[in-house]
Amino acid sequence: MKNTFGDSLTITIFGESHGDAIGCVLDGVAPGIDVDCEVIDLYLSKRRPNGLTDTKRVEPDHYKIVSGVFNGKTTGTPICIVIPNENTKSGDYNYGPARPSHADYAAFIKYHGFEDYRGGGHFSGRITAPIVAAGGLLIPALEKLGITIGSHIYKCCGVEDKPFDSLNPADDIKLLKAAAFPVINTAAGEQMVAEIEKAKDSLDSVGGIIQTAVTGLPAGVGEPWFDSVESRLSHALFAIGAVKGVEFGAGFAGTELRGSSFNDQLIKENGTVKTTTNNNGGINGGITNGMPILFNTAVKPTPSISQPQKTVNFLTGNEEELVIKGRHDPAIVRRICPVLDSVTAIVIADMLCMRYGTDVLTKGAKIWNMD
Amino acid sequence: MKNTFGDSLTITIFGESHGDAIGCVLDGVAPGIDVDCEVIDLYLSKRRPNGLTDTKRVEPDHYKIVSGVFNGKTTGTPICIVIPNENTKSGDYNYGPARPSHADYAAFIKYHGFEDYRGGGHFSGRITAPIVAAGGLLIPALEKLGITIGSHIYKCCGVEDKPFDSLNPADDIKLLKAAAFPVINTAAGEQMVAEIEKAKDSLDSVGGIIQTAVTGLPAGVGEPWFDSVESRLSHALFAIGAVKGVEFGAGFAGTELRGSSFNDQLIKENGTVKTTTNNNGGINGGITNGMPILFNTAVKPTPSISQPQKTVNFLTGNEEELVIKGRHDPAIVRRICPVLDSVTAIVIADMLCMRYGTDVLTKGAKIWNMD
Amino acid sequence: MKNTFGDSLTITIFGESHGDAIGCVLDGVAPGIDVDCEVIDLYLSKRRPNGLTDTKRVEPDHYKIVSGVFNGKTTGTPICIVIPNENTKSGDYNYGPARPSHADYAAFIKYHGFEDYRGGGHFSGRITAPIVAAGGLLIPALEKLGITIGSHIYKCCGVEDKPFDSLNPADDIKLLKAAAFPVINTAAGEQMVAEIEKAKDSLDSVGGIIQTAVTGLPAGVGEPWFDSVESRLSHALFAIGAVKGVEFGAGFAGTELRGSSFNDQLIKENGTVKTTTNNNGGINGGITNGMPILFNTAVKPTPSISQPQKTVNFLTGNEEELVIKGRHDPAIVRRICPVLDSVTAIVIADMLCMRYGTDVLTKGAKIWNMD
Amino acid sequence: MKNTFGDSLTITIFGESHGDAIGCVLDGVAPGIDVDCEVIDLYLSKRRPNGLTDTKRVEPDHYKIVSGVFNGKTTGTPICIVIPNENTKSGDYNYGPARPSHADYAAFIKYHGFEDYRGGGHFSGRITAPIVAAGGLLIPALEKLGITIGSHIYKCCGVEDKPFDSLNPADDIKLLKAAAFPVINTAAGEQMVAEIEKAKDSLDSVGGIIQTAVTGLPAGVGEPWFDSVESRLSHALFAIGAVKGVEFGAGFAGTELRGSSFNDQLIKENGTVKTTTNNNGGINGGITNGMPILFNTAVKPTPSISQPQKTVNFLTGNEEELVIKGRHDPAIVRRICPVLDSVTAIVIADMLCMRYGTDVLTKGAKIWNMD
Repeated sequence: MKNTFGDSLTITIFGESHGDAIGCVLDGVAPGIDVDCEVIDLYLSKRRPNGLTDTKRVEPDHYKIVSGVFNGKTTGTPICIVIPNENTKSGDYNYGPARPSHADYAAFIKYHGFEDYRGGGHFSGRITAPIVAAGGLLIPALEKLGITIGSHIYKCCGVEDKPFDSLNPADDIKLLKAAAFPVINTAAGEQMVAEIEKAKDSLDSVGGIIQTAVTGLPAGVGEPWFDSVESRLSHALFAIGAVKGVEFGAGFAGTELRGSSFNDQLIKENGTVKTTTNNNGGINGGITNGMPILFNTAVKPTPSISQPQKTVNFLTGNEEELVIKGRHDPAIVRRICPVLDSVTAIVIADMLCMRYGTDVLTKGAKIWNMD
Repeated sequence: MKNTFGDSLTITIFGESHGDAIGCVLDGVAPGIDVDCEVIDLYLSKRRPNGLTDTKRVEPDHYKIVSGVFNGKTTGTPICIVIPNENTKSGDYNYGPARPSHADYAAFIKYHGFEDYRGGGHFSGRITAPIVAAGGLLIPALEKLGITIGSHIYKCCGVEDKPFDSLNPADDIKLLKAAAFPVINTAAGEQMVAEIEKAKDSLDSVGGIIQTAVTGLPAGVGEPWFDSVESRLSHALFAIGAVKGVEFGAGFAGTELRGSSFNDQLIKENGTVKTTTNNNGGINGGITNGMPILFNTAVKPTPSISQPQKTVNFLTGNEEELVIKGRHDPAIVRRICPVLDSVTAIVIADMLCMRYGTDVLTKGAKIWNMD
Repeated sequence: MKNTFGDSLTITIFGESHGDAIGCVLDGVAPGIDVDCEVIDLYLSKRRPNGLTDTKRVEPDHYKIVSGVFNGKTTGTPICIVIPNENTKSGDYNYGPARPSHADYAAFIKYHGFEDYRGGGHFSGRITAPIVAAGGLLIPALEKLGITIGSHIYKCCGVEDKPFDSLNPADDIKLLKAAAFPVINTAAGEQMVAEIEKAKDSLDSVGGIIQTAVTGLPAGVGEPWFDSVESRLSHALFAIGAVKGVEFGAGFAGTELRGSSFNDQLIKENGTVKTTTNNNGGINGGITNGMPILFNTAVKPTPSISQPQKTVNFLTGNEEELVIKGRHDPAIVRRICPVLDSVTAIVIADMLCMRYGTDVLTKGAKIWNMD
Repeated sequence: MKNTFGDSLTITIFGESHGDAIGCVLDGVAPGIDVDCEVIDLYLSKRRPNGLTDTKRVEPDHYKIVSGVFNGKTTGTPICIVIPNENTKSGDYNYGPARPSHADYAAFIKYHGFEDYRGGGHFSGRITAPIVAAGGLLIPALEKLGITIGSHIYKCCGVEDKPFDSLNPADDIKLLKAAAFPVINTAAGEQMVAEIEKAKDSLDSVGGIIQTAVTGLPAGVGEPWFDSVESRLSHALFAIGAVKGVEFGAGFAGTELRGSSFNDQLIKENGTVKTTTNNNGGINGGITNGMPILFNTAVKPTPSISQPQKTVNFLTGNEEELVIKGRHDPAIVRRICPVLDSVTAIVIADMLCMRYGTDVLTKGAKIWNMD
């Protein structure tokens, strides 16, 4: 449904980069959940540009929760979060020449020229801020149930971070929560920053691969076929404009293995069924198997670069050379990590509600361990 | 919605591998579309095991369209296709020891032991047969609108097929439709078959990467964010149990490029806006840009192998060694191609209906070129 | 979604009156529910024409459950029920002259002449048979949770049945389950039958008002606004072609009361909160309050009558006089009762699943009474 | 989906009576529609209390459109409308004793005591203000396509207004748009006001029946079964808390007619197929037949009255006598008319989009008259 996602717990997003405000409506959240503004701020700050590897447009994100929270706790009714746009410089944007790799041309055809084009309008990555605010509300609630979520820059500019411990990424996730730059190996992170700066100096941009892990989910969540965990997660992940690939577990590399190497064999560990490897990324037949969920997300290079590019002006119909001005991210790999964490939290919370009912976010294992 | 997918044009699937029948209900198909049983048969035959690289269970797929077709044409009301299961050997299946990389354990937890486990039950790849029958009905209708869809085995056992011409894959698609083995380069196909046979002889299995292309879609289809073309396609593709990765355009490899190389620059060609490269796979901001849609799907090695594997018997709680008997596919890469074509056709048809209304499958460009 | 309804527990219907078969796919039913074919038969027999007050087309309803049931119990995966059409006489139907009060003309415009018109095609009341089969599966499962559902002909041909005890209709419901003609007061029923026969002798038809009650639902089910219990029930009830009105509790008559008479005052009875009247029909703000749900459904007179009627032939564009031949119901008020029971069961089961998770149909109060 | 409704054009509502703000997100509106704030103001003013027959809490409804509108026209992306709550007096509300006929008790059970109870919180009729703002945006767009919508108080306090001309209510609708009190016969309206004042003087409240008409819809909109026009309209109408009944065309009274009187016979008038009566309310088999849509909505007496009532305090568990203080409506029949108009506009616009695509609101008959 266009700008709404989810079945029981849903998010609806709205806003344009240079409009009055952006925001979201988060519906179906169980009543009685503590809303900790410091955690929301923390996640928003992880997404906020640092002016170094990112754009110079720094928005303070003075978000306001205008409904659904009462006395510091969720009420169970829709939570609307509004974030005003404060630092806009619309003069930088020029309508007509399609910015390559951006949505400009597709949007012009779809919206017949009525789209708010300033700063990419509704297509802007800025719309991920309310998603992150929603994540900042849900992630602590999931943590209370023993479910943790974390993302790191796995590959960027040819530099590779240490991957998650695929059998037990909980410690890595904890470490990432406190990290200034979302990598497990800080040395790799420093190299990445250096490479991103080089790209920036060349008026260029870079992409990367983000790895995400989820721990603590019970087995038996998700559905075969069209509500598979992979289907729902990928649906939400590909909603982010920069995402061009999603793979679970061993993913594309796993296609080079034979079954005898790929298959995750089962063992019993402290009374619990586990697998010795996690090539399936915690999901079999679309359903969680109790192992950590693991997936990688491919983030394309940021489209806006200041080098001259060939394009077509869709108003005049002429070919043109374009030099994009304005304040842009040479890399969004750092900033996208909390977005992926948040998207994941929304999907996981929704699937838990579908499986165990609308109170699961406060009752947790009491419900899913019930005989 | 579990076993139903789509918004305007929807498919609902049902059935178990060894039950009475499998099938689907295809709803929202425009009235007046010719139903060509030969094309449906063709697609079903492409999916049917050949007994060589595939399982020895060969089902005749004597499908029956029990509703929604009248005088050889669609009526506009739900089309139910039922395919009886005829060649079942349930004796081969043993309940308790979880087959590694299969859904057995996750299903046991979710369904509390009431699942029909025979042959994988509802998780069986056999349920893709009705999806392919639906595809065999929709693909010719899309072709009449100038939209073509094709898939080939891009990579398997270290052998690489010629990729689609990313700017114009129409000829490749035509060639594939007639191909016995779905590759563009037949020599590569022969090598793949040889490698698959080697794996089979080692009682092992293989996976692969399938590349799919769609041509002829108008620009402006899809939505930003949660109804992006990537979101909807990936949702449906990941519904297929063996799929572990989906990437559009340059995908994961594209993350290694800088923006200046990745960005698809725009030109005017015979009055039409085109791009000089297609790293975005025909989609910007979730919306078609008029270029071919291109994506790759990672198919994991078939889980059933006849080598001994470690597992846990979820009935007894004990660790066991398991040797899987029965008739299995050493590789499903060939058979999955028509499944991916069909899933793609369903998603594309649904998105066209959402954008242009329920008659678009018969009216086509008359609607989308309307001023 | 056209022919699919529900969020967690869904039904998809298919078929035409004179096609090969009709049926449904019931998805999201918890695993482990006993499937009692005798109860399904009972409900189907309540819906089957008796040849007296109803049409002479009597279908044996040799339904077949082709999926989703294993060893006599639900598996948790989609249950497809197929009912062949055996007693069809298509020669009776004539295409072109729109039968007044039928869907013929609207369908012709919508489907451009490709609709299967025989016997009303997909618009036929016959399509309610699979809905009743689904009800016959779900109603016993709900009864095990203490939830009972019953319907009776409240008003027909000026004859009024005794209404449900609005505070406690459980005994009335029990009585109705065994009744040959669905009334609480059998004398009123006999009068109704006599009146229906009079109408039939005049080549005419009648309608009526059906009252339905649901007991045993916990308080707190449903949602404010767009998922109100009234919204969801009415949505499903109005799906039945003959239904032209739905009212809850005191309904339209209640609009004549002042608040001081209408308001249901609250008391404590054996430790439970109850109301002294039930003008709200068990629902406040869209949410169950623990009192019985009560609603009335207006069923219009059966459209097919054998008297001459004015119409337009939509093929020729000419006005015509029409005399409908074929086998028709002078009244469907008796037969629609199990349909309304079944529709209600589906909606209630879905709402319970949304509130308490997908296992609620087997776990019941254990979940909803959890602290 | 709880607080979201619609398939292609959707509305999501949020807010509580005494929270910071209420509002909605309207998504799927075609780009290029003029947003006329004067019309939005007109509809909001029709809904605003006049302090006479209504509550004394008069909110100025200083709404703000924070997204989706650019240069005075819709962009095609989500339109978020925020209305601050300015005139709140929370001191009047007391938590614990359930107000009879209100949602208090049901909400307490559902939300476990975390609900924002002030002024009814999210259950308050105040949440209809953003729905009306959305209606004020959509209704003029529908009018440009020749589709008009109007509602009047058909029955209140035993006084009956002149019903709509069921074959052609266009003039009545025009008259109502300008009317201060929504009746066709102003003398009847004056009597109603006098009766409402009497009820108010007795510290009591009244309900009523609203009749709504829609003209200008093409035939062929809607779907058989679960997407019937009646299903979708009733779903949205019953979302309004005070609504306890919905009937189309002759509705409940029509059940007393025989088929020979009820059936709408067809004729040809100026080349168009029409019916001589409109007992089906413009809908056959769930699909529009080109005649005006007509329906009645039963509005229960306003729950809040200042007379003493028996109730239970759900915090203490004790029975209590309750006298409700605060500012309340003795009747909402006047104020609910623009709400029903708006709800109807949203449903009609969504169904048009599903049938004819997302540009139908700007292209109108060009699409639906296409060959």
